[in-house]
Amino acid sequence: MTRALALCAYLLAVQAEPSIEVHIVAHTHDDVGWLKTVDEYYTGQNNSIQHAYVHMILDTVVRCLEQNPNRTFTYVELAFFVRWWRQQDDSTKALVKRLVSSGQLEFSNGGWCMHDEAAPHYLDMIDQTTLGHKFLMEEFGIAPRTGWQLDPFGHSATQAALLSAEVGFQGLFFGRIDYQDLALRKDKKEAEFIWRASPSLGSDAQVFSGLTGEYGGNYGPPSGFDWDAFSSDETIQDDPQLEDYNVKSRVDDFVKVAMVEASQTRGRHIMMTMGSDFQYEDAFTWFYNLDKLIQHVNADGRVHVFYSTPGRYVDAKKSEQVTWPLKEDDFFPYADGPHQFWTGYFTSRPALKRYIRDTSALFQVAKQISAIAGNPTSSEQQGLEKLAEAMGVAQHHDAVSGTAKQHVTFDYAERLAKGRAAAVTGISAALGRLTDARSSSEFSYCDLRNVSVCAPTEAVGKTNKRACFALWNGLGHEREELIELPVSTDKVEVVNGMSNQAVEIQLVESLQSLTNYGAQAGGAAHTLLALVKLPAVGHASYCLQTAGAPAPKAQLANISQGDCQAIENENLKLWFCAGMLANITDKLSKVSARAEQSWMWYNASLGNAESSQASGAYIFRPNRSQAFPVFTGLPFMRLFRGPLADEVHQEVGSWISQRIRLARGSRHVEITHTVREIPVDDGWGKEIVSRISTDLKNSGVCYTDSNGREMLQRKRDYRPTWKLNQTEEVAGNYYPVTTSLFIRDETAQLTVLTDVSEAGTGCVRDGEIELMVHRRLLKDDARGVGEPLNETQYVTPYLGSDQGRHYGPGLVVRGQHWLHFGAPATAARNWRPLMDRLYLPVQPFFGQGSPSRSFSAMQGALPPNLEVLTLAQWDDEHILLRIGHQFGLGEDSELSKPTSVNIKSLLVGATVISIEERGLAATITRAEVEQRRIAWHVEQSPVHPTPLQSDDFTFGPLQIRTFFVKIKRTDMAMFI
Amino acid sequence: MTRALALCAYLLAVQAEPSIEVHIVAHTHDDVGWLKTVDEYYTGQNNSIQHAYVHMILDTVVRCLEQNPNRTFTYVELAFFVRWWRQQDDSTKALVKRLVSSGQLEFSNGGWCMHDEAAPHYLDMIDQTTLGHKFLMEEFGIAPRTGWQLDPFGHSATQAALLSAEVGFQGLFFGRIDYQDLALRKDKKEAEFIWRASPSLGSDAQVFSGLTGEYGGNYGPPSGFDWDAFSSDETIQDDPQLEDYNVKSRVDDFVKVAMVEASQTRGRHIMMTMGSDFQYEDAFTWFYNLDKLIQHVNADGRVHVFYSTPGRYVDAKKSEQVTWPLKEDDFFPYADGPHQFWTGYFTSRPALKRYIRDTSALFQVAKQISAIAGNPTSSEQQGLEKLAEAMGVAQHHDAVSGTAKQHVTFDYAERLAKGRAAAVTGISAALGRLTDARSSSEFSYCDLRNVSVCAPTEAVGKTNKRACFALWNGLGHEREELIELPVSTDKVEVVNGMSNQAVEIQLVESLQSLTNYGAQAGGAAHTLLALVKLPAVGHASYCLQTAGAPAPKAQLANISQGDCQAIENENLKLWFCAGMLANITDKLSKVSARAEQSWMWYNASLGNAESSQASGAYIFRPNRSQAFPVFTGLPFMRLFRGPLADEVHQEVGSWISQRIRLARGSRHVEITHTVREIPVDDGWGKEIVSRISTDLKNSGVCYTDSNGREMLQRKRDYRPTWKLNQTEEVAGNYYPVTTSLFIRDETAQLTVLTDVSEAGTGCVRDGEIELMVHRRLLKDDARGVGEPLNETQYVTPYLGSDQGRHYGPGLVVRGQHWLHFGAPATAARNWRPLMDRLYLPVQPFFGQGSPSRSFSAMQGALPPNLEVLTLAQWDDEHILLRIGHQFGLGEDSELSKPTSVNIKSLLVGATVISIEERGLAATITRAEVEQRRIAWHVEQSPVHPTPLQSDDFTFGPLQIRTFFVKIKRTDMAMFI
Repeated sequence: MTRALALCAYLLAVQAEPSIEVHIVAHTHDDVGWLKTVDEYYTGQNNSIQHAYVHMILDTVVRCLEQNPNRTFTYVELAFFVRWWRQQDDSTKALVKRLVSSGQLEFSNGGWCMHDEAAPHYLDMIDQTTLGHKFLMEEFGIAPRTGWQLDPFGHSATQAALLSAEVGFQGLFFGRIDYQDLALRKDKKEAEFIWRASPSLGSDAQVFSGLTGEYGGNYGPPSGFDWDAFSSDETIQDDPQLEDYNVKSRVDDFVKVAMVEASQTRGRHIMMTMGSDFQYEDAFTWFYNLDKLIQHVNADGRVHVFYSTPGRYVDAKKSEQVTWPLKEDDFFPYADGPHQFWTGYFTSRPALKRYIRDTSALFQVAKQISAIAGNPTSSEQQGLEKLAEAMGVAQHHDAVSGTAKQHVTFDYAERLAKGRAAAVTGISAALGRLTDARSSSEFSYCDLRNVSVCAPTEAVGKTNKRACFALWNGLGHEREELIELPVSTDKVEVVNGMSNQAVEIQLVESLQSLTNYGAQAGGAAHTLLALVKLPAVGHASYCLQTAGAPAPKAQLANISQGDCQAIENENLKLWFCAGMLANITDKLSKVSARAEQSWMWYNASLGNAESSQASGAYIFRPNRSQAFPVFTGLPFMRLFRGPLADEVHQEVGSWISQRIRLARGSRHVEITHTVREIPVDDGWGKEIVSRISTDLKNSGVCYTDSNGREMLQRKRDYRPTWKLNQTEEVAGNYYPVTTSLFIRDETAQLTVLTDVSEAGTGCVRDGEIELMVHRRLLKDDARGVGEPLNETQYVTPYLGSDQGRHYGPGLVVRGQHWLHFGAPATAARNWRPLMDRLYLPVQPFFGQGSPSRSFSAMQGALPPNLEVLTLAQWDDEHILLRIGHQFGLGEDSELSKPTSVNIKSLLVGATVISIEERGLAATITRAEVEQRRIAWHVEQSPVHPTPLQSDDFTFGPLQIRTFFVKIKRTDMAMFI
Repeated sequence: MTRALALCAYLLAVQAEPSIEVHIVAHTHDDVGWLKTVDEYYTGQNNSIQHAYVHMILDTVVRCLEQNPNRTFTYVELAFFVRWWRQQDDSTKALVKRLVSSGQLEFSNGGWCMHDEAAPHYLDMIDQTTLGHKFLMEEFGIAPRTGWQLDPFGHSATQAALLSAEVGFQGLFFGRIDYQDLALRKDKKEAEFIWRASPSLGSDAQVFSGLTGEYGGNYGPPSGFDWDAFSSDETIQDDPQLEDYNVKSRVDDFVKVAMVEASQTRGRHIMMTMGSDFQYEDAFTWFYNLDKLIQHVNADGRVHVFYSTPGRYVDAKKSEQVTWPLKEDDFFPYADGPHQFWTGYFTSRPALKRYIRDTSALFQVAKQISAIAGNPTSSEQQGLEKLAEAMGVAQHHDAVSGTAKQHVTFDYAERLAKGRAAAVTGISAALGRLTDARSSSEFSYCDLRNVSVCAPTEAVGKTNKRACFALWNGLGHEREELIELPVSTDKVEVVNGMSNQAVEIQLVESLQSLTNYGAQAGGAAHTLLALVKLPAVGHASYCLQTAGAPAPKAQLANISQGDCQAIENENLKLWFCAGMLANITDKLSKVSARAEQSWMWYNASLGNAESSQASGAYIFRPNRSQAFPVFTGLPFMRLFRGPLADEVHQEVGSWISQRIRLARGSRHVEITHTVREIPVDDGWGKEIVSRISTDLKNSGVCYTDSNGREMLQRKRDYRPTWKLNQTEEVAGNYYPVTTSLFIRDETAQLTVLTDVSEAGTGCVRDGEIELMVHRRLLKDDARGVGEPLNETQYVTPYLGSDQGRHYGPGLVVRGQHWLHFGAPATAARNWRPLMDRLYLPVQPFFGQGSPSRSFSAMQGALPPNLEVLTLAQWDDEHILLRIGHQFGLGEDSELSKPTSVNIKSLLVGATVISIEERGLAATITRAEVEQRRIAWHVEQSPVHPTPLQSDDFTFGPLQIRTFFVKIKRTDMAMFI
């Protein structure tokens, strides 16, 4: 072939090649609080901090869509949309309904917020998604088809499997992945792929996933095509009458960008995310230029461009016969450059994180009580809604993540407090109905029990009143627990409210003295442990009352500081040497291991020679990989032995205290730490870790949970899908520990359950795990929040010259680590149920008068590997019931197996009229979820996903199934 | 009366007091070029310089007005509006017409731009206003009722009298007045007043005037109530469901602001200008909050607030029985603080200013020729429109003022160049028809005659062609002038094209050698002066042709440098000593005076101990009051004597040259200066003045013109309406000299006419006048333009890291000062007509072929004190004719008297069907202007304005009358 002929052939080939189809997805990313509170963002207040005014975004977008029926827009965060919707008049609502129905306005994600993927518990993710989806179904009759997680700082397996596939999303889009991963994916045309994230759920729960932001690790428009009103990018000037006509150069720029993007994925269709943080406040600017872009690029003809949405985009990708790469792990940790691991936020603002988790449990219980009591009043419903919305806001990826400004953090906490108060009013009324109590408002909740403050129990002995309480167990199994009650005197006892039988009790030292807050609020010096027994999903009634004799007290042992001492029960033996835990033995499996605990701190980098990156709210970067001991002296240790539990109390230097409790019969040990104000007078920010060094030979492998569901294997300096160039040997091996972390070897497994999300690892050094429980930093890490993570009691308002100054004492953090130790084969059957118990503690509601009769909503027992996850009133007709299989594939020889249960006969006291299986977010049927599944072609994998078990009520490992249960209540309270 | 009773009485009085009525005037102030070019502003380009996107302003405002019929908006600058209008589809146009017709959208000012009030010639102000008003009348059938000069840096008497009262404005609003004046006015409830600015026109031409911007010396919203999308002011949060509900505090804030504003003027009505520079790009944000403000403030009830417009506001003020203070002088100079006199911009960018003035003359002539020739083609009309629009843009208060960025200045110049070229094409065609020339495109214009470049005349002698030209006289009187023609050879002559009679000529040295530009462009070394005679409003034809003998040449006199030398003619004698003008004698009135000219420079302040204020584009601030001589040696002087004129050529140091010409029979002397690149290597910015020191005893009093009309008396360190605290003895006594400046005592008057606006004074030192002709500065003066006034040949584009860097040689400036000297009583009759001659020089259009016959459009002579100001085609039917009385009240014993003329018989060759008198901007009748007049009550003044003479064609002093003349053309060309 001559050269000329070759050229001709080439040109023909080029011409024949199908053109690139560019989907323009106009969108705005509206943080549900970050630099400003959610309401400041909505109402445009405090614009000096950040210009953002969501009300105006929705106002102008709707007008722009009305103006031109070709235009489309994608909205995401229902927290904002619902605020706006409630303010609209009927004609605007009718217009918006038309826009939604025509597809011009599409909701993607559609949760209350765009939740974080590291810190939230899976139930909070499900709840906040359901909250948004319920609104969308009720108002518009729609259920979003795509996930839209553009901004979260890493992406979880649970997001892909549960919050995408199981919700009924056909695609999941996000912006931030590791910079090395990103570069490789662009190279290998893997910017889009099939993500099959849960080994337990398998290919059924896979989702088509795509990077956004021109595959640039972000979610904005291509460089140079930001036409937000606040941008300076070159607009399209197509009026030849005026100077600087630039149609040709702008079209050329665009075609180039489209070609590059198309080269990084598969198929002809690509998506451009035309929008960014709080953009479209003046939607007219964007749409005017997009209209012109579309007009002129299509006239040029080299690529084809049009308004689209994530839903339409997935439809287009579906129509292409493309074989996709497969992704099976998750996207943690996220790094946006060398030394820049976003692993600090797994721990940032631990008190907010803990408050959210604590509230989550209360919320679950509140929903249960309301559903069971039935016939809620509107104020009860509003109370629950208020809490639901506060929790929805709190799951945002700058809320629970701990990456918001201080005053915003306070706002999150305030919303939760108000939500809790509102919900408790409702619970009180419902409990009143449920327990035949005289008044509907007589139950109170001791919000400050964590600092030993509880007026009803503290009053016992001071007055002649007793304190009776309904103790709610939200789990689907009977349960025996040690509960803690603050008491003012030792002459108290606890009796069962019905039988009047005294229960076993033990008096221990309360922890209130460790903080000023407890003492200031009148916290009790003593805590009464009481051993209580509770039915499944229900309550028993107990009363604290004065007794003739003092309660049995834990006795302070006479020990010699520094010597080795042991505590033990039927199952475990713990050795303490030099004041700290040194060894642990599982008596049953006769496994023993060195287990030396130490409290350490990393020196938060302020930037150094290697990199200017500082440690901050987002990023964890120790200035060197070796941590310093918090205290180099001998910790002061006390040992208390009592009939119900032994406790070791330790003072590790002047600002860390720890209580280790081993209860009678317990298979685990509870470590409660109190980290008081972290000293930073030396100019060094500090990141506090609890470390346990063992002789387990885990070879750099550890396991961390994904939002409390699947356990994921982690390996030192390793990523499953690419060869990692590791730049931070500690921070780069940190992972989110939302609920659990373990290391193991052939003989033993050490599992730590946390009561809150923490950054942790078991991969850095063999046999060693560490969990970061608190951080106090002095420099901002330049990811936007604009203040060092230096949590104090107060902050000045954003007015005048003294804006946002932090002052007052530093944050005190208390938390729990539950340790399980034993043979690997039997570990899961112990720690999996423990995980549920730690998440959902029993909740006492203190009544004014006499005890109520106890009951359970459950008829017969659930199989041990199933759990009731949600029991809530959905609407007038339906109870929403979620039941989950709580064991991962292969975790336990028996309990990981599929299990069946007869839902129909599960609940007490109601005639079940029908049961309908729903998608995870409940607004569509399970059948529709299945129908939405797309048979993607996947490399090295069967083409068709196998549907999950959907026969009558069988649950595969870690499967969650959601039901609408239509009942006829046989009583005012459904179950009684 | 008891105390309690007194309190009751007080409270009743307070309650009974009428509430304050707050007019919300939503508006945007859109600079027609400043930091960006007019098109950059319109299309949103270069937003990194300044975020501004006028297209979006108009788009969103219109949608907001459509949304709520209560909303109103005021738009001002037609340059932008017309750009937008031309891009709109029919439905948007129909909507806008509805909005205008309902009064929701009001145009205030309605000129092409918001013109500067210091630098523009009054005809340019009239033209640009007429251009905008014509559009508004044609498209919407409306004529603005108010003036809106919010931003210009001082306010002229001509603005009040001609461009307000005579245009038919019922109110004039502006923001910037001297800070001392402002404080006093607020104190004395004089923030609004009646401005009767022209002694000649009297109370007929008064206008109700008001300060804007909460009377704060600006034009924005009250502090804290800026709800532009780019602002951070607190929005109104009135949703009790959300946090930070702030209705009470916002209402309180607003009521307070309204009370304060109301206390500073008279009557119950006040106006708030809700908008500012380029605001309302997202109009939704503004209107949404204004809606809420109105709702909640009115619910509160302490003040009443509503959407309004300047027109509605004037109506409301009219309805109040209030007596107003009277203002009779002008608002120059403007200072916004001590040492901060905005008197630099009177001279800033002198070459741009001169180019605009030069183009103004060409524009007047172009309109005349087109109107006279009649039946213009559409390309002729488009040419004129292009020039009209370029001139409209150029009058903007950051254009001709010299306060725009360098690249914007280049854009203004480019627009003028393109406009001139387009108009000349039209003139050529019209002249073709008018002169029976064979082709309609054969006339060319020598744009570069100022540097002695003119291909047709330079070719004479090189080829055997002669250069015939139609020489246009735009004035309404016959005229004899010395014209300058660049010639390549001395063997040339000039003959009358019809009679072939040679005219008197004289060869002089051209000035092209003084700049590189002339030489580079092939400028001729010789200039031929020819004495030509021209009819009124018409042309004569002359030809330059080769001659057998050399033309008479000015002879270099043999003088001894430094000695005193004289030149003289019939009227004047000038003495030069030590190389510079030293003495001047008026031979007729036998008055003589010392008149020592010197070139001086002020050291531009970079800020000093007294004030940090630097001298810059806006502000003139010499670092000390004493100027330095440009050259301390003996200027090199040459003296040429010739038959038509004597010339003195001087070199004042290395970078200033000067030519002083005294023509035979002339009553004035012409000084042409060339200021080449001002050296600034010493780090000192320099402001160059020509100073003439005389022994006139003017006692600190001088007179400067107001835009070329009324002469205003100025006094040293004095303002007519308040006791000035003077902080700058030079800059604070500088005034705009748009065309003329004089000082006088009982025996003599020295008048200087300028060919361009300049900063000048005759008040600083007795007997001394100075005019600033050039400035080169090294520091920005912090008033927004953001670059030092350091004009160079090039500037880098606003891209990348090298944005807006100035480079290349510094600006060269050439200009003329015409000096008249004589007895005060007869001064005006000389300098007033000279002012017209200097403004409107005769214009040669060079034809390709044979000479054309000459003609005049005037039938009979105009009275000597009247002048034809505008003669233009208005529409298919009407000729627009403006005639002005050119003498101020009392300036001349005879010529200042009212004069009559019969308009009907004024014009040649057309049957006048009707004559209708119009307002100054021509779109409404004179009767409507009169009808719009409001009989304001004025302190110490008759209540009713006396209408101007409106009988048949009588003109009072300085009166301008505007007519529609409906004619029947008797020939293809109207007048021939």
